[in-house]
Amino acid sequence: MSLHDIARRGFASDNYSGVHPEILDAIAAANGGHQSAYGNDVYTARLQEVVKGHFGPDAEAWPMFNGTGANVTALQSVLPRWGAVVCAKTAHINVDEGGAPERVGGLKLYTVETPDGKLTPELIDREAWGFGDEHRAQPLAVSITQSTELGTLYTPAEIKAICEHAHSLGMVVHVDGARLSNAAAALGVGFAAFTTDAGVDILSLGGTKNGALGAEAIVVLRPGVAQGLAYARKYTMQLASKMRFVSAQLIALYEGDVWLRNASHANAMAARLRSALEGVPGVEFSQPTQSNGLFVRLPAGVADAVREHYFFYDWDAATCEVRWMCTFDTDADDIDAFAGLVKDACAATS
Amino acid sequence: MSLHDIARRGFASDNYSGVHPEILDAIAAANGGHQSAYGNDVYTARLQEVVKGHFGPDAEAWPMFNGTGANVTALQSVLPRWGAVVCAKTAHINVDEGGAPERVGGLKLYTVETPDGKLTPELIDREAWGFGDEHRAQPLAVSITQSTELGTLYTPAEIKAICEHAHSLGMVVHVDGARLSNAAAALGVGFAAFTTDAGVDILSLGGTKNGALGAEAIVVLRPGVAQGLAYARKYTMQLASKMRFVSAQLIALYEGDVWLRNASHANAMAARLRSALEGVPGVEFSQPTQSNGLFVRLPAGVADAVREHYFFYDWDAATCEVRWMCTFDTDADDIDAFAGLVKDACAATS
Amino acid sequence: MSLHDIARRGFASDNYSGVHPEILDAIAAANGGHQSAYGNDVYTARLQEVVKGHFGPDAEAWPMFNGTGANVTALQSVLPRWGAVVCAKTAHINVDEGGAPERVGGLKLYTVETPDGKLTPELIDREAWGFGDEHRAQPLAVSITQSTELGTLYTPAEIKAICEHAHSLGMVVHVDGARLSNAAAALGVGFAAFTTDAGVDILSLGGTKNGALGAEAIVVLRPGVAQGLAYARKYTMQLASKMRFVSAQLIALYEGDVWLRNASHANAMAARLRSALEGVPGVEFSQPTQSNGLFVRLPAGVADAVREHYFFYDWDAATCEVRWMCTFDTDADDIDAFAGLVKDACAATS
Amino acid sequence: MSLHDIARRGFASDNYSGVHPEILDAIAAANGGHQSAYGNDVYTARLQEVVKGHFGPDAEAWPMFNGTGANVTALQSVLPRWGAVVCAKTAHINVDEGGAPERVGGLKLYTVETPDGKLTPELIDREAWGFGDEHRAQPLAVSITQSTELGTLYTPAEIKAICEHAHSLGMVVHVDGARLSNAAAALGVGFAAFTTDAGVDILSLGGTKNGALGAEAIVVLRPGVAQGLAYARKYTMQLASKMRFVSAQLIALYEGDVWLRNASHANAMAARLRSALEGVPGVEFSQPTQSNGLFVRLPAGVADAVREHYFFYDWDAATCEVRWMCTFDTDADDIDAFAGLVKDACAATS
Repeated sequence: MSLHDIARRGFASDNYSGVHPEILDAIAAANGGHQSAYGNDVYTARLQEVVKGHFGPDAEAWPMFNGTGANVTALQSVLPRWGAVVCAKTAHINVDEGGAPERVGGLKLYTVETPDGKLTPELIDREAWGFGDEHRAQPLAVSITQSTELGTLYTPAEIKAICEHAHSLGMVVHVDGARLSNAAAALGVGFAAFTTDAGVDILSLGGTKNGALGAEAIVVLRPGVAQGLAYARKYTMQLASKMRFVSAQLIALYEGDVWLRNASHANAMAARLRSALEGVPGVEFSQPTQSNGLFVRLPAGVADAVREHYFFYDWDAATCEVRWMCTFDTDADDIDAFAGLVKDACAATS
Repeated sequence: MSLHDIARRGFASDNYSGVHPEILDAIAAANGGHQSAYGNDVYTARLQEVVKGHFGPDAEAWPMFNGTGANVTALQSVLPRWGAVVCAKTAHINVDEGGAPERVGGLKLYTVETPDGKLTPELIDREAWGFGDEHRAQPLAVSITQSTELGTLYTPAEIKAICEHAHSLGMVVHVDGARLSNAAAALGVGFAAFTTDAGVDILSLGGTKNGALGAEAIVVLRPGVAQGLAYARKYTMQLASKMRFVSAQLIALYEGDVWLRNASHANAMAARLRSALEGVPGVEFSQPTQSNGLFVRLPAGVADAVREHYFFYDWDAATCEVRWMCTFDTDADDIDAFAGLVKDACAATS
Repeated sequence: MSLHDIARRGFASDNYSGVHPEILDAIAAANGGHQSAYGNDVYTARLQEVVKGHFGPDAEAWPMFNGTGANVTALQSVLPRWGAVVCAKTAHINVDEGGAPERVGGLKLYTVETPDGKLTPELIDREAWGFGDEHRAQPLAVSITQSTELGTLYTPAEIKAICEHAHSLGMVVHVDGARLSNAAAALGVGFAAFTTDAGVDILSLGGTKNGALGAEAIVVLRPGVAQGLAYARKYTMQLASKMRFVSAQLIALYEGDVWLRNASHANAMAARLRSALEGVPGVEFSQPTQSNGLFVRLPAGVADAVREHYFFYDWDAATCEVRWMCTFDTDADDIDAFAGLVKDACAATS
Repeated sequence: MSLHDIARRGFASDNYSGVHPEILDAIAAANGGHQSAYGNDVYTARLQEVVKGHFGPDAEAWPMFNGTGANVTALQSVLPRWGAVVCAKTAHINVDEGGAPERVGGLKLYTVETPDGKLTPELIDREAWGFGDEHRAQPLAVSITQSTELGTLYTPAEIKAICEHAHSLGMVVHVDGARLSNAAAALGVGFAAFTTDAGVDILSLGGTKNGALGAEAIVVLRPGVAQGLAYARKYTMQLASKMRFVSAQLIALYEGDVWLRNASHANAMAARLRSALEGVPGVEFSQPTQSNGLFVRLPAGVADAVREHYFFYDWDAATCEVRWMCTFDTDADDIDAFAGLVKDACAATS
């Protein structure tokens, strides 16, 4: 029995949405009988094939519970105990994981200010130095997010340039792909084009924000780059006992085109919202809208007025900047109604 | 589409089984629309009521992904950084969590040999000393498992004696309740009788082994005993974004009597298997069968012969001791067929 | 028998120098007979009195091996497991401790760019937010360095403003005082004026850079602010067994005026060097010279030419910025000869 | 000026004694002028030669502050993050390091009960299993103590058997050599006979208990066995800035025969005490006296009576077992007086 109003949606986060029906069906289909726990099941085996189909024959998938777990465990697996990670200051690993990289992973983060959430070889160089100096935690990995926490996108060429630069310095490249599908949909290319083929070594592949109940995976792209992942997944407490159900979700997303339909829809809804509000007096977009998130500065009071109807988060309360996220189940009517509310509220303040 | 034979079951572990249909229904019912992520949802709120119903009005539930996460995060939350845990040598936290208590929790375990997986005040005293000595990691918590990893049970009085003793030493008592339902069903009492009312401070409440897809919870029984759980759950990477689906599973288990039906059935199947094999030449039960697990020494070769039909694990290969676990979906026919195979194999060896 | 040339000095670091003779004498005087290990000795007891004399009657000293140990253990002792530290990007804890705060302390550092190595309330606010949000490692401490890694000084009023601001946010203030004596000498005030009286909660008191063989201490200024230091010092591996010799060094430094003589001399030598080179074409000081360190940009090639005679480190090779440190045993003749070499090398490049 | 009675000694611990005069002289001789900090000094270079002289041409010495630091950093350097250590339950790393192996090293310890503090291949096998099982922290190192915490000794053959067994299982062998000199002196062989030549991979070489002010070292015996020690020593906060003084102590101990004179004397004093009390009614030695420590059960009240004159520790208060340690400065008169007191007190209780 549902305890909540299933007709109500908002713009807070892609993980406020529920589960795509096809994924729910896949969970049910994986039920019944006994399957080996902890990943020795046919669903996790099948997932390997699905992942190889997207990322190439060398790819290996390690299902995880959540994105923080995937990021921290992936980064730890490619770094020695003395390693550190160069990332954008806005990276999820830096601002949204409660210090898990440091506390659980023992990882130091070197953060770099960016205008748009994107690193470049030049920005990486601000922290990629001191190799061999025992006093400096060794910057041996770069972590980028695609699409970024600011809704922006790296082109395949940009990621390739980062990988080439990082590799030339002996650094490994990790991609936080909590919204990798949104990126692929927006770029109009397959995953490999901006991961495997661009030189990425390891990535966190999202499922939850794209319509799963709760399913992520580390995907190792370069064989041998990750050490001890089987052990690490266990001791970082990310090893699901009934893993068949995690793998089944990822299969349902990625074997067919659910991932693409969901991501394309979310991106389209974001574009529709941007179109509706572009040029409206008072509405100032602070980032390009390249995937499913919008970042907007609004006149004082507008955010709170609109939030009486649709929930979303402040991004920077000091500057009245807010974040609006669209998801696989965002409705065009939601967009139109929401845009209308924003316009009205802006008009009321002018 | 199912990839596996849903008619095939074994005796390997309770987490080889799938999801109870009522729990699957509850997941579906919680779907649709938007709900706040990370626990600010109506399902997690309702779960609080359900848990208070079982454990008393002060109880607080913190949904977690898995048992290791619940155990380590619970223990860390009740201990200062210099704290250590006294537990049985056979405790899951010692033998089955890949060092997560040490590596993620920073916790030292003082392990004690036991005949049956159960601590006593006297056994606790073997390691509960050195208070105030900076050289000794301070033994400030006791962790017991109910029902134990050896299928045995603590009586409510035994747990009460442990709690009184531990508290008199300034120690906190944690219960690993991955199979708490099996214990309650076997004891024929409610949960509170051997937890809250016995003086237990905090527990890990299992869901997965009792028929959930993947749902556990830390339940804080003594207000104030745990520090910073909200932060700890995040940085130990156990915070589910779409938590409504974790909570919905736990509600489905514990609001009605699914927990009791599932656990009673599993226990009954274990008893049926014991009855069928008690006294059979060659079959030597190494522990009392008090819940849903059986520990048996078999003539050499018997285990492998039977495993051609039903999978299960060696417990101690050196002594030909095996473990058989029954679950909520173990079938009486499974038991009878399995017992027959064991008898035949034993007969063949004599 | 000495293996090295005891007449040779340089400008690399204050810890390239040896031990002040009065400190060596104090070590010898503490020798002989038996004394309780691990701090239960009369020297460590006497040190308490010495420290109270400087920092007030509530101060408590905890001898440690080195500055990294003092910083990390001090910060951990004032923070819950979910705490984080706001510090300048140039802070020793961020750039020179090999990730010990993260790896050993489990601490997240929020770093802030500064022009001169000094935080201000405004700069602290860039990272002091998100209180109560479980996704954000909680910024519950501020760490400043006095004198800073850039040779600059906080005035007592500046530290007071930082403490008031931090305390108003519920944050604790730590001072990395590896060169606290240089600061006191330069400011011409006692230690308490810019620590205890300014509201500082806990500090790392240096000895090694000021003429000790190897002796630092955590000084707790606000009773109760630090939890479990006795245990933490042990498990962070900073508990000296023959502590009497560490304490004896600190007594020798701080009971009389050795600390002041040493620090004043080092500061004076830095001032003499600045005077000698101020205005010399090509020599561009990048920071004010307020204690014993100088930061200078030189014409390309000059640093290497001078380094043939006196060793020192590049600070930023890309901009030809170097660091020159003066110590308690820097000689006026060293300064004059060194300044002459720099002038000559600059002249040769123009 | 000495604050304590330099004529007073006891039997509490070898680290209650001070510094051997030749070591103090060596510290003074290393003073003056500037030397590179952090180990780039001529004393640390010379130490390498000294250590190679004892342990063979492949040996490498890494000076550390204390034994806990040496043990934990050494073990971490030879283990992956998922590694665990098999050790005797009485091992210093288990009972006297405040949980540093777990908290700082992230290491799980598998402890084994022993009668005399000594492991054997059979005892190691109690925990050396589960290789490749991700649920089990991987037992990839053995740590033994020579001489043990119970004053007993391994023969070279016993250590060789342990090493061969461990290596056959893919495990590395570490020796906690806080009292390695006492062992060599007692065995009448060089260090290599029961370390390098026996197959030991890495050891913690003690200095402090043998007459140093504070100096230990990790000695890597098998090239390549330890990863990242330079970085690890820094982030475990064991990197001395003025390392020349740590190395000078170790040179003074180990270049000539100070180590042997000190250890032989301490051992001889222990033997003298044993001789004096052997057979005395009420005095029951609980361990053989093979190095410089004695373990004795005494009639109730005796220990406290004797402690009015000479301090020492209870080993197990419940059984009236005490520990007496002799050191390099224990005096034959001390032994005779002490033995007399024990005899008198025993006589008074009978």
